[in-house]
Amino acid sequence: MNLNFKKISIIGLGLIGTSILHAIKAKEEDEVITFAYDINPNHREIVMQLKIASFVCDDIQDAVKEADLVILAVPVGAMKTVASLIAPFLKNNTIVTDTGSTKGSVISDVNPYLSNNVYFIPSHPLAGTEYSGPKSGFSSLFENRYWLIVYDKQTNETKKLIKFFEKLGSIVEIVNTEYHDRILAITSHLPHLIAYTIVGTASDLETDLKNDVIKFSASGFRDFTRIASSDPIMWRDVFLNNSDAVLEMIQRFNEDLSDLQKAIRKKDGDKLHSFFSRTRSIRKKIIDAGQI
Amino acid sequence: MNLNFKKISIIGLGLIGTSILHAIKAKEEDEVITFAYDINPNHREIVMQLKIASFVCDDIQDAVKEADLVILAVPVGAMKTVASLIAPFLKNNTIVTDTGSTKGSVISDVNPYLSNNVYFIPSHPLAGTEYSGPKSGFSSLFENRYWLIVYDKQTNETKKLIKFFEKLGSIVEIVNTEYHDRILAITSHLPHLIAYTIVGTASDLETDLKNDVIKFSASGFRDFTRIASSDPIMWRDVFLNNSDAVLEMIQRFNEDLSDLQKAIRKKDGDKLHSFFSRTRSIRKKIIDAGQI
Repeated sequence: MNLNFKKISIIGLGLIGTSILHAIKAKEEDEVITFAYDINPNHREIVMQLKIASFVCDDIQDAVKEADLVILAVPVGAMKTVASLIAPFLKNNTIVTDTGSTKGSVISDVNPYLSNNVYFIPSHPLAGTEYSGPKSGFSSLFENRYWLIVYDKQTNETKKLIKFFEKLGSIVEIVNTEYHDRILAITSHLPHLIAYTIVGTASDLETDLKNDVIKFSASGFRDFTRIASSDPIMWRDVFLNNSDAVLEMIQRFNEDLSDLQKAIRKKDGDKLHSFFSRTRSIRKKIIDAGQI
Repeated sequence: MNLNFKKISIIGLGLIGTSILHAIKAKEEDEVITFAYDINPNHREIVMQLKIASFVCDDIQDAVKEADLVILAVPVGAMKTVASLIAPFLKNNTIVTDTGSTKGSVISDVNPYLSNNVYFIPSHPLAGTEYSGPKSGFSSLFENRYWLIVYDKQTNETKKLIKFFEKLGSIVEIVNTEYHDRILAITSHLPHLIAYTIVGTASDLETDLKNDVIKFSASGFRDFTRIASSDPIMWRDVFLNNSDAVLEMIQRFNEDLSDLQKAIRKKDGDKLHSFFSRTRSIRKKIIDAGQI
């Protein structure tokens, strides 16, 4: 299967980066050469042992200098540094993309470093698990998942990149930057923040109660702890780099929670019932949309 | 396998009630007779078609009058009415239990109606799914799940009931009422309230954004919508009947969320990172406790 690119560089060997390597390898396209780099030598060593990259490079410049596609799969807080390190070594006409969960910050961090001879096309695969690190990747991570891509006008380069994502199994959709960051703030960033919060609240309870919270962990809480076990650095960076949209969604959430809190205090059963009935229909729409 | 009871009555044919019927039937204990009742005739009809009860009764009194064990698997807001309806027809020495998610309210609602000749032993299986209704039950729901039971002193009756729950596959633990209601407030009730809230917040967004929230529903939000699709009546009743403990936990949660909100506003990356790292360890403890 032709992947549209012959030499692909993956910078950042966590869940997303290694899943891309697994997915490329699973296509059994002999002519594709992959270059892998991570700032952590242990991660490089693991990827070497996994044999999922053609070359694991000890130097970031070696990982990008021959590539016709460079994918930045690092925490969004590291995009700026990575862009500054690779920019001088990119070939003309190289396509650069990223997989960050915030798009506004990545665009303003990366763009200033890149010359006019390379094409930066920001993107974001809506795919992940609660696991992180180089051992967590797998080839089917992107199958049937949306891969969002940000650009103003269609070009040969955007077409090539879209085809590549589609070959990894994704459904590609074009979004604008600000819209992306608001959608992700409510569907991903706020839920993670809330899950982190509630698990934190539980862990501050008196010792007896806390031990039994773990022991008797019921289904609601178990799901929250799974979400709250995601990579702390990745999520710190998300909140620092999408703060406006996240703070807006926290504000809206707080207003709704206050309403329900008041309904509980006033024992307003009708209000609770009608709120809980409304949210049920949203679930049905998501199931109908095939994204479960 | 001897289930310790010969005639078992199940009042309320939702997820829990029908799962108990499935589990009893799966034991293939021919001598056990089950009586099933639900206020909703459609639910009775479905249970009849499922052939999981020996008798489906159209009258609640017929469902309990011969039983040596009566299990109330109705929303906690209905416990009082059900207790008043069945009390006059219970045999001497019948054991009555319930499966409600709040114990303080159930005890004060049920106890006044029961005579001294029957034994009320409140209980609560920590088992469930987001599905509800008579078609949602299945025989393995209680396997390896805790079934909490409330009593002051051990008697032959508590021993019998514990053995019965164990035969359904559960691990039985004794808790006190107030402690139960606080533990459940943080592990189950607050997570459900939060999930309902966040899905409600999303559904109030501008139409364009809302449609894409559904379309691009990422993993965090998808989990919340699953939790927020639970039975609205059951959950309304939980919040009305465990309001003190739930309001206490909302208060604690709000304080923690305010802290994180401030850290995001101030771009305090160290604080976010240390909070997110701490919650990760809780997940590990739950996995170690085998409750995933």
